[in-house]
Amino acid sequence: MQTLESLVLGRPVSGTAAPVQLFNPSTEEAVAEIRSGGIDFGAVLAYARGSGGPALRALSFAERGALLKALSAAIHAERENLIELSILNAGTPRGDAKFDIDGATGTLAYYAALGESLGDRRVLADGDGAQLGRTARFWGQHVLVPRHGAAVHINAFNFPAWNMMEKAACALLAGVPVVEKPGTSTALLAARIARIVHDSGLLPAGAWQFIAGSVGDLFDHLGAQDAIAFTGSSRTAAVVRGHRNVVAKNVRVNLEADSLNAAVLAPDVESSSETYALFLSNVALDMTQKSGQKCTAVRRILVPKERVAEVRADLVAALGKVKLGDPAAADTRMGPLASKAQFDDVRAGIGRLASHAEIACGGSQPARERGYFLAPTLLVARDAHGEIFHADEVFGPVASLLPYSGSAEEAAALVALGGGGLVASAYSNSSEWAERIVLDLAPWHGRLWLGSDRMAEQSLPPGMVLPASIHGGPGRAGGGEELGGLRGLAFYQQRTALQGFKSQVAAFAPPEAAAAR
Amino acid sequence: MQTLESLVLGRPVSGTAAPVQLFNPSTEEAVAEIRSGGIDFGAVLAYARGSGGPALRALSFAERGALLKALSAAIHAERENLIELSILNAGTPRGDAKFDIDGATGTLAYYAALGESLGDRRVLADGDGAQLGRTARFWGQHVLVPRHGAAVHINAFNFPAWNMMEKAACALLAGVPVVEKPGTSTALLAARIARIVHDSGLLPAGAWQFIAGSVGDLFDHLGAQDAIAFTGSSRTAAVVRGHRNVVAKNVRVNLEADSLNAAVLAPDVESSSETYALFLSNVALDMTQKSGQKCTAVRRILVPKERVAEVRADLVAALGKVKLGDPAAADTRMGPLASKAQFDDVRAGIGRLASHAEIACGGSQPARERGYFLAPTLLVARDAHGEIFHADEVFGPVASLLPYSGSAEEAAALVALGGGGLVASAYSNSSEWAERIVLDLAPWHGRLWLGSDRMAEQSLPPGMVLPASIHGGPGRAGGGEELGGLRGLAFYQQRTALQGFKSQVAAFAPPEAAAAR
Repeated sequence: MQTLESLVLGRPVSGTAAPVQLFNPSTEEAVAEIRSGGIDFGAVLAYARGSGGPALRALSFAERGALLKALSAAIHAERENLIELSILNAGTPRGDAKFDIDGATGTLAYYAALGESLGDRRVLADGDGAQLGRTARFWGQHVLVPRHGAAVHINAFNFPAWNMMEKAACALLAGVPVVEKPGTSTALLAARIARIVHDSGLLPAGAWQFIAGSVGDLFDHLGAQDAIAFTGSSRTAAVVRGHRNVVAKNVRVNLEADSLNAAVLAPDVESSSETYALFLSNVALDMTQKSGQKCTAVRRILVPKERVAEVRADLVAALGKVKLGDPAAADTRMGPLASKAQFDDVRAGIGRLASHAEIACGGSQPARERGYFLAPTLLVARDAHGEIFHADEVFGPVASLLPYSGSAEEAAALVALGGGGLVASAYSNSSEWAERIVLDLAPWHGRLWLGSDRMAEQSLPPGMVLPASIHGGPGRAGGGEELGGLRGLAFYQQRTALQGFKSQVAAFAPPEAAAAR
Repeated sequence: MQTLESLVLGRPVSGTAAPVQLFNPSTEEAVAEIRSGGIDFGAVLAYARGSGGPALRALSFAERGALLKALSAAIHAERENLIELSILNAGTPRGDAKFDIDGATGTLAYYAALGESLGDRRVLADGDGAQLGRTARFWGQHVLVPRHGAAVHINAFNFPAWNMMEKAACALLAGVPVVEKPGTSTALLAARIARIVHDSGLLPAGAWQFIAGSVGDLFDHLGAQDAIAFTGSSRTAAVVRGHRNVVAKNVRVNLEADSLNAAVLAPDVESSSETYALFLSNVALDMTQKSGQKCTAVRRILVPKERVAEVRADLVAALGKVKLGDPAAADTRMGPLASKAQFDDVRAGIGRLASHAEIACGGSQPARERGYFLAPTLLVARDAHGEIFHADEVFGPVASLLPYSGSAEEAAALVALGGGGLVASAYSNSSEWAERIVLDLAPWHGRLWLGSDRMAEQSLPPGMVLPASIHGGPGRAGGGEELGGLRGLAFYQQRTALQGFKSQVAAFAPPEAAAAR
């Protein structure tokens, strides 16, 4: 049995504690194991701060960008092997495996290009300078500089490749060393990518470390310049944010947690329209891609009440066409849940929802004898205001139809019951209707996706996270913010107001840096 | 005895609990009292969210700006009365009283002008739009919209006027209603200003509430769209950030806490230079203005070791010229500490420092028989690396001289021992020296102030907070950020990525909004 290794202090470590097994979710067979322990986490952070940080900060943005580009290429070169590992340990069909792996290399390439565009500077301007005194001799300019700490990344099980590398891309381009911790159940792929990065020798010593297993007492060693970016459940997120030392030291924390993402169909959308077809295909894709284990997947489908029967029938038909089965088979579109824990959680969640809803298709019964397979499950809520639909994120191929009146205001109020989300999508060809819902939904979301006939052919689906747009959301979604171009670097930077003689202060922030944003 | 009133749910409330007395720190006589209790904090927040928020959001930036301008004028109209209250309850000489009160009205006026410049829009663009799909039909644009919650402001005792109104200015201009809680010991001035705002009738119902006394169980009622901005000690800050419900709901928190601000004299600065004179006058001002009860006041003075005797003598001479005494007297430059608690804390702190340092002037003995008076106290550290100088913020007219080698790197490393601060100042006419220290100090500070001959005549001192520059700092300083022009509004706004058909998305964020920043 393969034991996954941590990569800390420049070398692999196999751990000392009792092994935890990783499984093939299609066959329920063990495929690897992880042993925690044997790591001095204080030393890990000191190595990042003392070696990785200074070496990264000595590089320009263009040089850091070139490293990201080379990392992207090194990972892409092993794409076929990585797809196999994703199928083996995460149960993803090839399409879902590519989505994760190409998401990782694509995000690295995006930030590589951003780094190249910033050229040989090491400090970014934040906005324009301003006269502060009676004359321009006393001048102010905000700058963004790399913090002198380590970036600890606690990544989710559902995107072992993409979730790790999107966080790493932002930190490394900002000039901050990373310590990556994968979700244990699907760590086989993450560990292989970590090894590719390590073996490439591209990054300076201390800039890249990887923890297979528990982070132990790592949080106790964090200080004022360190940062934690976490993706996972609200419950664990609260433990991270409330950790005694994290609070005491004002360690920066970015959380991406639960989100009951909504799709809203406006009453104006005709059944024959491109917008309606787009709505159906996006919802069916969101529910089944990665078996619905996507933080941006739709959980609530708001439909004008007189259209519920039609939408229900059309979605059941669309979901019925999704081929469920062995992820290694070429024609499979949807595989199992990623782990026994997920499988059990989702089955229990469907049970809870079903006591307040009618099951239109799917359900909590296993879809195959072996493996963690569940069929796509659509429910129709008896009462759209039922708390369960707005508070209980069932993290699988599961969504609920919520009937509403057709009013933008009512739809927005229903969506807001979710307490904050990553993304909401609204489908309408009426600009007045769209404008009303945007203004009410925006405070509750990090991203709003507006579907209409005019963009239907050219759009990317709302469940897709793009590096140019921020990813995160308020409240239940964690209150965090990642990506969004250069915005994603700010978490790893200190914004500092420089005040002094104009030409001296302005020299730290050439104006092109602002323009590149 | 006057009982200070809360202003909640549209009406004054006197409280029900046992009274807490407020004193005149010059005479130790009670001048007013506060009674907590009798307030339904869930209803206070609901009133803000349900009445104040929608009414503010219905206004454009220009309209909100006009309200701030009128508030500034209403407060300024009572300036003489407010100065008297500041002298009476905070022990400030007239100059210090004006600094606080004019800081309040000036910051309101600054944000009023910013609102006017933004015109009739209600949504701000965040950066430029970007093509997201194969063609420009699928477009992305980040926007900033007002959050739908309440802004709870826990203000510090040292600037009862300015600290309250700078927070209120940013929240109200952003379109978010406020609940203001003053520091109890100096609440007489804050309560009068709160009453002026209330009685002016300028703000919509629910946009302005004021709590005299304890906030009780208010934090238990906060939700995903609410925010807390706190100014005060690190200890209380950790209680706010770690509060169970605040963590569970991902309530936004901005902390401004302890800061051991440093001033660094470079070895190149000649005794006859304008820069040296500026260094002396700024340090002496910072130590004595508001009796050193200023979050940006200098606590650590780094001086090349061969210059320590000279600087010590010059500072002792400068501090000796500061007239200490009755704040109501016209020639008084420095009054008492603001309260008995402050007086006791500062005396104890001087005692702690003095066990690792030599007292050059001042000391922990009372400077007058009655009242909370202490003389400006300069200490000379025996060992500049002594932990106490970098960890123990003595919040009074107290600072320590720390000898160093003259190297920019050593100075930066010493300053960084403070664990993060609001502002550091560096005095040098060598641009190489300044550049080196800026790059090392910037990650540890929200603001860096660079003194040189070229700006000496035109500069404002480093202890002065300007609305155009951010105010806050990492680590020990709380990790927060206030002010900084439009940056100060972001805490009250949600940043949302809009994705959809180009012209539809772009319509939410006219390009001028970005330019106005």
